[in-house]
Amino acid sequence: MPTRRQLADALRVLSMDAIEKAKSGHPGAPLGMADMAEALWRHGFRHNPNNPQWIDRDRFVLSNGHASMLLYALLHLTGYALSIQDIRDFRQLGSKTPGHPEFGVTPGVDATTGPLGQGLAMACGMALAERLLANTFNRPDFPLIDHYTYCFCGDGCLMEGVTQEACSLAGTWRLGKLIVYYDANGISIDGKIDAWFTEDTTKRFEAMQWQVIGPIDGHNPEALDAALLAAKKDTQRPSLIVCQTHIGFGSNKEDSETSHGAPLGEESIALAKAQYGWEDPPFVIPASIQEAWDAKEAGATLEKAWNELFARYSQAYPDSAKELTRRMRGDLPETFDECCQHLLTTMLAKTDSLATRKHSQACLEAFTACMPELIGGSADLSGSVGTMTRHTETFDPVQGHGNYLYYGVREFGMSCIMNGLALHKGFIPYAGTFLSFADQAKNALRLAAMMQTHCIWVFTHDSIGVGEDGPTHQPIEQIASLRIIPGMEVWRPCDGPETALAWQCALTHTGPTSLILSRQGLPALPRDPETTAHIAKGGYILRDCQGDPQLLLIATGSEVALALEAADVLAKEGILVRVVSMPCVERFEKQNSAWRDFVLPPSVRARVAIEAGSPSYWYRYVGLDGAILGMDTFGCSGKAKDLRKHFGFTVDHVVSEALALLR
Amino acid sequence: MPTRRQLADALRVLSMDAIEKAKSGHPGAPLGMADMAEALWRHGFRHNPNNPQWIDRDRFVLSNGHASMLLYALLHLTGYALSIQDIRDFRQLGSKTPGHPEFGVTPGVDATTGPLGQGLAMACGMALAERLLANTFNRPDFPLIDHYTYCFCGDGCLMEGVTQEACSLAGTWRLGKLIVYYDANGISIDGKIDAWFTEDTTKRFEAMQWQVIGPIDGHNPEALDAALLAAKKDTQRPSLIVCQTHIGFGSNKEDSETSHGAPLGEESIALAKAQYGWEDPPFVIPASIQEAWDAKEAGATLEKAWNELFARYSQAYPDSAKELTRRMRGDLPETFDECCQHLLTTMLAKTDSLATRKHSQACLEAFTACMPELIGGSADLSGSVGTMTRHTETFDPVQGHGNYLYYGVREFGMSCIMNGLALHKGFIPYAGTFLSFADQAKNALRLAAMMQTHCIWVFTHDSIGVGEDGPTHQPIEQIASLRIIPGMEVWRPCDGPETALAWQCALTHTGPTSLILSRQGLPALPRDPETTAHIAKGGYILRDCQGDPQLLLIATGSEVALALEAADVLAKEGILVRVVSMPCVERFEKQNSAWRDFVLPPSVRARVAIEAGSPSYWYRYVGLDGAILGMDTFGCSGKAKDLRKHFGFTVDHVVSEALALLR
Repeated sequence: MPTRRQLADALRVLSMDAIEKAKSGHPGAPLGMADMAEALWRHGFRHNPNNPQWIDRDRFVLSNGHASMLLYALLHLTGYALSIQDIRDFRQLGSKTPGHPEFGVTPGVDATTGPLGQGLAMACGMALAERLLANTFNRPDFPLIDHYTYCFCGDGCLMEGVTQEACSLAGTWRLGKLIVYYDANGISIDGKIDAWFTEDTTKRFEAMQWQVIGPIDGHNPEALDAALLAAKKDTQRPSLIVCQTHIGFGSNKEDSETSHGAPLGEESIALAKAQYGWEDPPFVIPASIQEAWDAKEAGATLEKAWNELFARYSQAYPDSAKELTRRMRGDLPETFDECCQHLLTTMLAKTDSLATRKHSQACLEAFTACMPELIGGSADLSGSVGTMTRHTETFDPVQGHGNYLYYGVREFGMSCIMNGLALHKGFIPYAGTFLSFADQAKNALRLAAMMQTHCIWVFTHDSIGVGEDGPTHQPIEQIASLRIIPGMEVWRPCDGPETALAWQCALTHTGPTSLILSRQGLPALPRDPETTAHIAKGGYILRDCQGDPQLLLIATGSEVALALEAADVLAKEGILVRVVSMPCVERFEKQNSAWRDFVLPPSVRARVAIEAGSPSYWYRYVGLDGAILGMDTFGCSGKAKDLRKHFGFTVDHVVSEALALLR
Repeated sequence: MPTRRQLADALRVLSMDAIEKAKSGHPGAPLGMADMAEALWRHGFRHNPNNPQWIDRDRFVLSNGHASMLLYALLHLTGYALSIQDIRDFRQLGSKTPGHPEFGVTPGVDATTGPLGQGLAMACGMALAERLLANTFNRPDFPLIDHYTYCFCGDGCLMEGVTQEACSLAGTWRLGKLIVYYDANGISIDGKIDAWFTEDTTKRFEAMQWQVIGPIDGHNPEALDAALLAAKKDTQRPSLIVCQTHIGFGSNKEDSETSHGAPLGEESIALAKAQYGWEDPPFVIPASIQEAWDAKEAGATLEKAWNELFARYSQAYPDSAKELTRRMRGDLPETFDECCQHLLTTMLAKTDSLATRKHSQACLEAFTACMPELIGGSADLSGSVGTMTRHTETFDPVQGHGNYLYYGVREFGMSCIMNGLALHKGFIPYAGTFLSFADQAKNALRLAAMMQTHCIWVFTHDSIGVGEDGPTHQPIEQIASLRIIPGMEVWRPCDGPETALAWQCALTHTGPTSLILSRQGLPALPRDPETTAHIAKGGYILRDCQGDPQLLLIATGSEVALALEAADVLAKEGILVRVVSMPCVERFEKQNSAWRDFVLPPSVRARVAIEAGSPSYWYRYVGLDGAILGMDTFGCSGKAKDLRKHFGFTVDHVVSEALALLR
């Protein structure tokens, strides 16, 4: 039987070899964390390599994602569908072993990581998901949902502010089954961290209501085992296990930042292997070590026992079993279509002027009534963004139930936690803040798009319509910035029916959506069944002229009513004008060219796009010959109506720009 | 003589009245912090209302910027050029009293605040600036630079992760003259914070090497005076004074979130004024209170004494006096032009393939040699982003000198600190990270653009050229996202001379600049004096054809060489092709239409834009009839050359797209 150190060394050599072959990668962290990984993955981690989707598996997030080879080595050795050839293909185009772990690419990778800190923040979301599902679905003698969320993180993760935001919430929420291993190697890329990271981490995490264990020797298996036991014992607090380790362990670059981000080189590898007493050639793992790592049988046994539990549960609680299955699959409830129909009918009947954030709240009233998988929240703007409904119940950290989260003023942490909730499965997280603060969450939105998590961001106060709060609170470039994140759907509805369809699409779409909503009231617009039916296409003719149009007015959100008013004036002057509402450009772009050319006939070059935001985005539709009414400066503090006039969002201005094009 | 409470009440009534008149604003915080403000501004704050630019004034940052009326009341009452009419015009378009404090709009406002947490982070930068300048310019008996940086912040600021990032550095850097008043009122917008902010703040800040004073009664002037003394006494650690206050103090909405973000209403105001014993009509301040607040004379005396000190200093150390004046004015050194000339000559002589990040480092070698106002740094990527030079010296927290900052993995905190350094004056901060992590700093870049701070961001690893690190590290939408921030200049140079000009423009431009630089080597391009002379125009003809072009190829950075190669092939096929390099769109857009039409003749519609990033931005130049070679998906992990081929950045692809347009 190999020693535990030898088992850890197997992770080390695979990491070194793969990085060396790729001539690219980060050996320092895998070498440093190999003993931590051996201790956790062989002495406590409950998973089934045959089925990375098993819903009650423990979750594992490698927050210091540059240590990806450590994770790939673990997945390979324990028996996931990750072959030695995959390991050899580390960092090659099209391989299952990319430079940083990518959710959806590699079986067994629970989250995409790399941007430091976000993995830990997502792990907080996963642990919350577990706690909530357990509370909802477990029954006496049926601990159906009962797993841990583990996370490895490094010094860099703890420097990033997002970990403060998320860990503070994890402490407040008493996520006792979140266990974080902190790889405290004292080195980051610039060298010894003493000069830029002097925090007393123990004290900091205790201040956030965490249990802090250690510092322990991160290379001592027994210390690691004891720490894990202690971590599990505290069921009320998340645990941070401070593991003192040596980056580049066993190599001649140990304890040096030179081991961090570049292959060790053949000579260093040879020396390290000699140090480990490792004699096999690259990519060869002795059978005894392979065997000791292989977790397929143990994993199958674990899942089998769970499946039996679930079978008994299904008999005792058939409805709950069905519901859990539905939620974990991400299927919509049976009543969903009906709910949408009813909502749309209600919206069509409204005649009052109302902010789209209010319409959004009405949508949420409907959907939170029939979709328990919705878990809402806000970064301390619940009233303003309309994310609470009669069916939301604030999460209770003591009891562990609820479907609404007060995230505090933490947009980035909130968004990462949403990603974690969605990655876990069983939830569709939605949460809101002001659109201008989407900036703070930007990289989490990017990761959401990359992972295609089913999250919905409710961004309100979407333009100078914010009014008196001024330029810091008035988005300009934010809408365009969100639209250009690949894979993010962005909706900016103009009225109740568009808001209803935006929500419906956000809930049926399996990736992330950003909803862009007005603070100010917008008029109910005249609609016929056809225009309503076309909303889901993302861009459509809201009002047309008789015959071929001379002029296209393209608008979104609060500017659609303005376009309609301007069209009235232009029509009176005999101009054949078409008004196109474009609530979701991404959807419009997915339509076939017949639809796109029908809505925006290529021959019509007199086009005016109107959106109270960065004009940049709209050249794609107006080209070199059109005009854009947008904002290429910041806004101002003032009454919204004064600002709209000041910045040219007036009927006169639209008309004069349009006429200038036709001259 | 009015009591101190009455003096504080003057701030309260002005705040209430102005907010009521505007029918918009945040009364809760001004009412809660008025006693803190009275204590600081009348018992310790060294400033001169006659001259808000006095370089040795204490700095004041209102991090919870929604309390703007408190600051405006302070500025008005102490004697800044802010009249009672300005107060009456609170939150009106064009007024000097916008909804949140805006640097450059209101005399005496040292920073634009509103997005929570960033004010505190900027204050850290200001305090660092003071310490560095003092170290450089003070002489025995000449404490020329000797002021405090004060900051008021609220619960929301401390929830935002950016304060963890910046305050951690402030502790590490021993910024003993940074004094932060924490308005611990226990309420944020969603209500009592117990449910989402359970941190032990004292412990957290002690963990970051801060002195924590209190909690004290934030309405007790004597306690506040004692706290300020204690804060000043500790010269080695920044101080956090925890002030327990009542939001909406003295009103019937005291201790309730309902006082936070909406006018109190006439009835509540009447009740509050009765409670205060305040009998004057709105906007009327009794003469005795006016007089007690007036700091003009005291301020003039303070500055006069300092001016005398400076006069003596100028005699004793004429060169240092001149240099300090130059730096505080933001004037360039006399050797600047020579340095630029020499640098450009060197760049033109280079023939090797080199990454623009390496060219950038060469530029910094030159400029850090002659510009002591440059203060560099990196978010833990110093080697990769090339921000250290032979002339940089790491900041020493004990001695207080140096011109290079190890920010750790804290992009957002770094960027706020850069803003603070620039706002203080005396420095041009530059710092680097990978472009994909610009996301984390986004809102600080936005504030930089809004305030027009003279900061330079060095963003390297600017595309799929990153290679193996994969999509999390490969920017796609980031370049376009930066370009659409109003007032931000974005340079993406293609070779050494363009990099030199980019740096030169960044240093002469008075607002913020983002430099977008390649990880990978780029060939030295053939140049003549004309093309070099045109770089500063932002967009210019790098290679032309004989006669009028049929086709325009527009490219930036790493894609310019590709455009040239493709142009060779096209020229061989008899196509009249022009290659336009567009390193800085913002500069190009500032040229007159004659130049723009000369470079991009409106009649030539066969246009191909090439940039390994979001295509979205380029429609403005190719319109509906052109083509864009960009990326509208995320990248992949793989060798850079494989990725460039995979994503179509090849000569063949450019040629085929171009030919398709001409068909």
